[in-house]
Amino acid sequence: MASLENDRFLRALMREPVDRTPLWMMRQAGRYLPEYRETRAEAGSFMGLCTNPEMACEVTLQPLRRYAMDAAILFSDILTVPDALGLGLYFSEGEGPRFERPISSAAEIDALDPDRAANELGYVMDAVALIRKELKGSIPLIGFAGSPWTLATYMVEGGSSKDFAKVKSLAFNEPEVMHQLLSKLAKSVAVYLSEQVRNGAQALQIFDTWGGSLSHAAYREFSLQYMTEIIDQLPREAEGRRVPVIVFTKGGGQWLEAIADCGADAVGLDWTTDIGEARARVGDKVCLQGNMDPTLLNASPERIRSEVGQILSAFGEGSGHVFNLGHGVTPGIDPEHVAAMVDAVVELSPAYH
Amino acid sequence: MASLENDRFLRALMREPVDRTPLWMMRQAGRYLPEYRETRAEAGSFMGLCTNPEMACEVTLQPLRRYAMDAAILFSDILTVPDALGLGLYFSEGEGPRFERPISSAAEIDALDPDRAANELGYVMDAVALIRKELKGSIPLIGFAGSPWTLATYMVEGGSSKDFAKVKSLAFNEPEVMHQLLSKLAKSVAVYLSEQVRNGAQALQIFDTWGGSLSHAAYREFSLQYMTEIIDQLPREAEGRRVPVIVFTKGGGQWLEAIADCGADAVGLDWTTDIGEARARVGDKVCLQGNMDPTLLNASPERIRSEVGQILSAFGEGSGHVFNLGHGVTPGIDPEHVAAMVDAVVELSPAYH
Repeated sequence: MASLENDRFLRALMREPVDRTPLWMMRQAGRYLPEYRETRAEAGSFMGLCTNPEMACEVTLQPLRRYAMDAAILFSDILTVPDALGLGLYFSEGEGPRFERPISSAAEIDALDPDRAANELGYVMDAVALIRKELKGSIPLIGFAGSPWTLATYMVEGGSSKDFAKVKSLAFNEPEVMHQLLSKLAKSVAVYLSEQVRNGAQALQIFDTWGGSLSHAAYREFSLQYMTEIIDQLPREAEGRRVPVIVFTKGGGQWLEAIADCGADAVGLDWTTDIGEARARVGDKVCLQGNMDPTLLNASPERIRSEVGQILSAFGEGSGHVFNLGHGVTPGIDPEHVAAMVDAVVELSPAYH
Repeated sequence: MASLENDRFLRALMREPVDRTPLWMMRQAGRYLPEYRETRAEAGSFMGLCTNPEMACEVTLQPLRRYAMDAAILFSDILTVPDALGLGLYFSEGEGPRFERPISSAAEIDALDPDRAANELGYVMDAVALIRKELKGSIPLIGFAGSPWTLATYMVEGGSSKDFAKVKSLAFNEPEVMHQLLSKLAKSVAVYLSEQVRNGAQALQIFDTWGGSLSHAAYREFSLQYMTEIIDQLPREAEGRRVPVIVFTKGGGQWLEAIADCGADAVGLDWTTDIGEARARVGDKVCLQGNMDPTLLNASPERIRSEVGQILSAFGEGSGHVFNLGHGVTPGIDPEHVAAMVDAVVELSPAYH
């Protein structure tokens, strides 16, 4: 494998000195880019795009042709894992992801085969290997998966949910059944992420999109515990280098101390957390990633630049910050506004290093 | 006016000694009760119910006939204020509240008359006076309003929103226009709440349902500042007694110190905040209200009881806690499960006083 030309993302994750703050953007390969929409149309469907390694590679690389991103992230979806477990993922217009066969009983959970995920997800591994090859050692590749709790919410609710009534009822009324499901998912995700590393992923992010819907006690019991289990099982070195792990719990700002103890190298922050306060709380233990409000990309380039400046200044001097949004970029954003954000990070951050 | 038989709610808000932890429940007058659904059907529409003082009084009293609540809360809706400002509130099936004439320009904001709200909302004042009379001095009556930021989200988006792109664009791109809107709303809300007190409300809650969608800095600038302004203008005594104010920012757990400084007597917590930690942070300054996850009402009565016990124990000994959910009760909840929660508070909380 080629050595890495730009490793400031990996260095910042380990809180090693860098020349400027590295950045990437959640959902950087996505619908806000016209070239993405073209490839997506060619693929015919979202899952068609995910399951075609050449096309997944193409859309992964698209934002890198426009912007000075310091990392690529595998184009895929967190729900490929439950799909591989047999739930039948599909996307319905305007409704988001749905499962044909949601989980509703202990027997169905009992029947899930955690090893099946890895076996069925060869298309993801092919995409990882191909992207890694096409990156030609320019910047590192991030692999990812959903957290067990987040996957379970979709699997039990059958899709997106507003109040998570079904999955929480299961957790509160039959905790042992819920724990069985989460254990199986943790096993699947650990194998899945390990395979991504074996195929070339150089850092990993666990997306805990719905951990923030829980109380602190329930978060520890049903979400954080299983992310900790996964991290314990991951290969932490590949090609002679640390494979850093980022944990991102949206809405987890109140629990940073607990999250920073889970074994991850970095903690993702949504925009509700002041990154300066977060650094004071846990910055001697982990790198922090984030955290501009994605809706700020609707604002003027000048306003975007001033917000970037405020976030960089709130974090302050030294390494241990990866700039990102506080959640994924939304479809309607003008690509020029993303450029304004990227330029601001590139131009304003060297002063802090 | 009759003297108050049960004042433990008002006493706890001022952190004065009580015999047990008082409780009420957000949306306690609501769709989970069959008698509410009956009155609602009679009224023909949700707004028909809000604008009919006798019916609004009837549904306010309904939960008190079933449960040992320590406070009544006026039955109304936070969006009556923008409706009175001329936006034309209506409720569309499955879509929630909508406005016929959302705000989209500086000129429209300029044309809003903040005094109009109080003049148009006589039906609310009639309901307050009637409820107060019908309560016959048994328990205190809570008046309420939405926060300026929360009202503005609906007024600019035209209804509910997932990412608040429109209202945030206005705030980020034209902050002076946004501040004009928020100032006018603060004025309307201050007059509206003062009128409620004059008509008999004995405590007030400001619902900041969407403050938690902002960054910490934006929250202070666009939400907290205006709640502080309102509180500054409220009558703080009526009938020789303090009229306590509760501020509830859903998703505001990270900003408790700032919220506790806004002049409110009590701070409402959603269920993501550990109430014991919240007490350590701000409990010497304000009373805390909350904070059971409303979805826990789907769990078994035994599980509900154990959760109530955990929350009471996390808060610990002494006054300064009003038990509540961390958000409104949802329509599908079994009234017997609410009874289990109420009984648990009544039976378990004396040990802490």
